[in-house]
Amino acid sequence: MKKLINDPKNVVNEAVAGFEVAHADIVRVSHDPVFIVRADAPLHGKVGIVSGGGSGHEPMHGGFVGFGMLDAAVPGPVFTSPTPDPILAATQAVDGGAGVLHIVKNYTGDVLNFETAADLAAADGIQVRTVIINDDVAVKDSLYTAGRRGVAGTILVEKIAGAAAERGDDLDAVTAVAEKVNSHVRTMGVALTPCVVPHAGEPSFTLADDEIEIGIGIHGEPGRERIKLEPADAIVDRLLGPILEDLPFASGDEVLLLVNGMGGTPQIELYIVFRRAAEVLQECGITVTRSLVGNYTTSLEMAGASISVLKLDDELTALWDAPVQTAALRWGR
Amino acid sequence: MKKLINDPKNVVNEAVAGFEVAHADIVRVSHDPVFIVRADAPLHGKVGIVSGGGSGHEPMHGGFVGFGMLDAAVPGPVFTSPTPDPILAATQAVDGGAGVLHIVKNYTGDVLNFETAADLAAADGIQVRTVIINDDVAVKDSLYTAGRRGVAGTILVEKIAGAAAERGDDLDAVTAVAEKVNSHVRTMGVALTPCVVPHAGEPSFTLADDEIEIGIGIHGEPGRERIKLEPADAIVDRLLGPILEDLPFASGDEVLLLVNGMGGTPQIELYIVFRRAAEVLQECGITVTRSLVGNYTTSLEMAGASISVLKLDDELTALWDAPVQTAALRWGR
Repeated sequence: MKKLINDPKNVVNEAVAGFEVAHADIVRVSHDPVFIVRADAPLHGKVGIVSGGGSGHEPMHGGFVGFGMLDAAVPGPVFTSPTPDPILAATQAVDGGAGVLHIVKNYTGDVLNFETAADLAAADGIQVRTVIINDDVAVKDSLYTAGRRGVAGTILVEKIAGAAAERGDDLDAVTAVAEKVNSHVRTMGVALTPCVVPHAGEPSFTLADDEIEIGIGIHGEPGRERIKLEPADAIVDRLLGPILEDLPFASGDEVLLLVNGMGGTPQIELYIVFRRAAEVLQECGITVTRSLVGNYTTSLEMAGASISVLKLDDELTALWDAPVQTAALRWGR
Repeated sequence: MKKLINDPKNVVNEAVAGFEVAHADIVRVSHDPVFIVRADAPLHGKVGIVSGGGSGHEPMHGGFVGFGMLDAAVPGPVFTSPTPDPILAATQAVDGGAGVLHIVKNYTGDVLNFETAADLAAADGIQVRTVIINDDVAVKDSLYTAGRRGVAGTILVEKIAGAAAERGDDLDAVTAVAEKVNSHVRTMGVALTPCVVPHAGEPSFTLADDEIEIGIGIHGEPGRERIKLEPADAIVDRLLGPILEDLPFASGDEVLLLVNGMGGTPQIELYIVFRRAAEVLQECGITVTRSLVGNYTTSLEMAGASISVLKLDDELTALWDAPVQTAALRWGR
């Protein structure tokens, strides 16, 4: 295993320390317990938004803390949920009196620990709502999950709910729009290679030189099937089919198309995937009106990609377009 | 070799086609010959800026076409210079009567083909200036180069010269500031793994499971030395030493610190590298006032990173901060 790290047990702390120095204009960092918070938090009268989960998916979630998106992110150890303590501390740090929304990917540990933190925050007088993200159409009930997994669609929820909070929507409204995005987005991914958790030092699964895993989870959990490598266009068709059937999407829809890199795939390949996905959508009469291509929800150095399709309406489009200023997503400001 | 591609000979064309659809709000694409151009080009009275080179380094250069940065980018085949034809066509497409600056990384093929294109453009009545980028301190005279190589510092030149052109500086002034950035920036990189050019199908070099290459080039050209894997902090010290000695940087300097991923390295590792680099600079009395961390000048799926340090002054800082709106770099607009 070759990684640009020091002691494997310091990976998260050292990365967060680097993040703090690099983005001091946008965030502050609490080191004990560890969480990343907007430099200007708490904002009086604004709904606070907190997300988090195991590290190793960067820029998710720390890269999305800032104006118009998250108020705080709580990074756990690599691929391991943060405990309730830092989640509670982050919730307290962003509470401006208007309540706090927790955006939680659907993994057993995350759901449990965010729930405990929400209960403790409520006992402390903070109103907390929770939205569970479960956009992955690949599998039901996996290694870490009851029900569907939360994957790259999470960042679309974070962006759009963040914009709603920023414009002054109350806790019910911000929660409702987050639930709406979750219900309108579907994702499926593929892995070409496994990834290595630093403190494990070995790949969590193996793939032969000519094999890929369709429907991979963001921790390398099994997907739908393991097949021989195919041309990119055929792989895209395998991912898009289940996505389009599931909602279902229909001719006349306007969508946001997110092609997300898993960490180890060159951008040139992501655009090849995007090209085919946009082509298939066009053939279905679905118009791509917003696009995002890049490494947003990663699995360390895993090679592969996921495709997310979000059905848009005027409200979601306007909130997507609203200004955002974070380390990983920035426009209009 | 597992890649998300179709026919290896269509990699660049298909990626550019995907890029065109994803970023239609920012760019237009010419498919024959292939170049990417600002959607609003040519801009009357504004100096045009054109860069380009072999593909496989994305987002460089196409990801930097847009307001406040490049007017056009000319992607060659993977790791192969574009021919003079598309460079000439791009130069003509962005000429608004105020002349055109070519920003060229110092590789023999690029220098030669941009020179030929510049001569042809001049014969066509377009005033062309050229700035050759050679920020890599690792080696003199390498596989593809006479003199030093142009690497990740190139994007800092493109951003700052782009801001100067956008505010209305004339061709002499834009050229001068580009030369100033090139003379103020130093870079050195490390590879943990090689990368595979799609049409070759095999790695262009090999590294043992415990080996890294210090001073790697962005096409996998040899660096200074091949050593056993070390902790990230020790590797950072090996990269920063030659950078700091070379200009030389000195106590009291203000700098921009760029930690650039080579394509296959997780962001969490880039921030560990950033943390140590910022620490060393601080120990030297050098203040990091601007930061950039991410995959900006890549080598396909190579694992590794480069560190660039740019000595700032008020002029360069203001131009760095100026609004930019491209696929890969966007703020203030």
